[in-house]
Amino acid sequence: MTNPPEQSGRSDELLSVNISRLFNALLPLSEPQSLYRSGSFIMDSQGENGIWLLTEGRIVIRRRIDGLILASQQAPIMLGMAEFFLPTGQNFYDIEAVSPCTTHVIKKTDFMTVVNRDQLWESVAVVEAYIIQVMSQRDRLITSRSATDMVWGHLELLQQEPEEIRQRISAAQYIRDRTGLSRSTVMDTLARLKRQGAIQLQRGHLVCICID
Amino acid sequence: MTNPPEQSGRSDELLSVNISRLFNALLPLSEPQSLYRSGSFIMDSQGENGIWLLTEGRIVIRRRIDGLILASQQAPIMLGMAEFFLPTGQNFYDIEAVSPCTTHVIKKTDFMTVVNRDQLWESVAVVEAYIIQVMSQRDRLITSRSATDMVWGHLELLQQEPEEIRQRISAAQYIRDRTGLSRSTVMDTLARLKRQGAIQLQRGHLVCICID
Repeated sequence: MTNPPEQSGRSDELLSVNISRLFNALLPLSEPQSLYRSGSFIMDSQGENGIWLLTEGRIVIRRRIDGLILASQQAPIMLGMAEFFLPTGQNFYDIEAVSPCTTHVIKKTDFMTVVNRDQLWESVAVVEAYIIQVMSQRDRLITSRSATDMVWGHLELLQQEPEEIRQRISAAQYIRDRTGLSRSTVMDTLARLKRQGAIQLQRGHLVCICID
Repeated sequence: MTNPPEQSGRSDELLSVNISRLFNALLPLSEPQSLYRSGSFIMDSQGENGIWLLTEGRIVIRRRIDGLILASQQAPIMLGMAEFFLPTGQNFYDIEAVSPCTTHVIKKTDFMTVVNRDQLWESVAVVEAYIIQVMSQRDRLITSRSATDMVWGHLELLQQEPEEIRQRISAAQYIRDRTGLSRSTVMDTLARLKRQGAIQLQRGHLVCICID
């Protein structure tokens, strides 16, 4: 499940260069909004909503219909593009700050003006490609053939989260928030992996994965 | 799970207009390749692979690592954009023709030249948005809280497939190919839905869903 480091490094850099280009051009026309830890906002295709630029902090994206967490993302990142370019009126997400966040919103018309003016469409295509890649990775995780594979895949994700997140949330909760697996399945699998020496947990929080 | 028809109609039209624009500009520079029913080709980021344009027929996209079917798509559609714009080297898919297909491949450099020349970036953004929407829909289906919801969601998908597909593949196989649910879970759930009068099956093939 882990990315080959070299390839992943190259694609991280490509994403980061393109997000910088977009942020530099879009931020002067966007409106800052603070997002507090417990706050949430809604992405949808109604009204004048545009693209959300997260310039600071870390968020999780929850699907509103069932509260499932689809992704964790660290600034800088842009959100809301799929509904922006191809509105379905079906996708409602709540964005929750997991650390103090600053977001900026840019209106649809301003976004189009700036992207056309500064010829930033290729950067837009790269950011959308990133979203597709994140969703492909999630798809691999949640359609693993066994609960053990699903738990293991999410432990790998958890290990990539900042220390602060790993201390705040138990491994079991992290996995259940993202998979819909039952409490007992998750607890039994974690207990087995711990017994086998594959992971170290401390009061239910992930310390480390012990297998290469 | 079903799209509100009005909204869905509008977004279908938007997609179709933008794919036509891209195909008109890209096809003259692309190379035709026939894809037979049992054939498959590979999308990856190696070598000179570019974007695949499906101009005729119907395909399924299988994830190579486990053979799971991620999507069924009808021409006209473009494939391979996420790895094209943001190569991860991680995503390998087999594309299987389920009806006689014609595909065209356009090289990376030609694609960039044409899209820049004809200012087709917004169309590219719309097609990527469509891929994100398809994946969001799939995510909702496969993370349903119960096996019954997963089976039901896939029966709704199956009902939208052409008649020919529904006659060729049994409902159970269709669902198992896409979810990784066990044979017994799928069979038990289908049997229960049939007993409840919620679906009609004929020799295992879906005739119709009987609930509004």
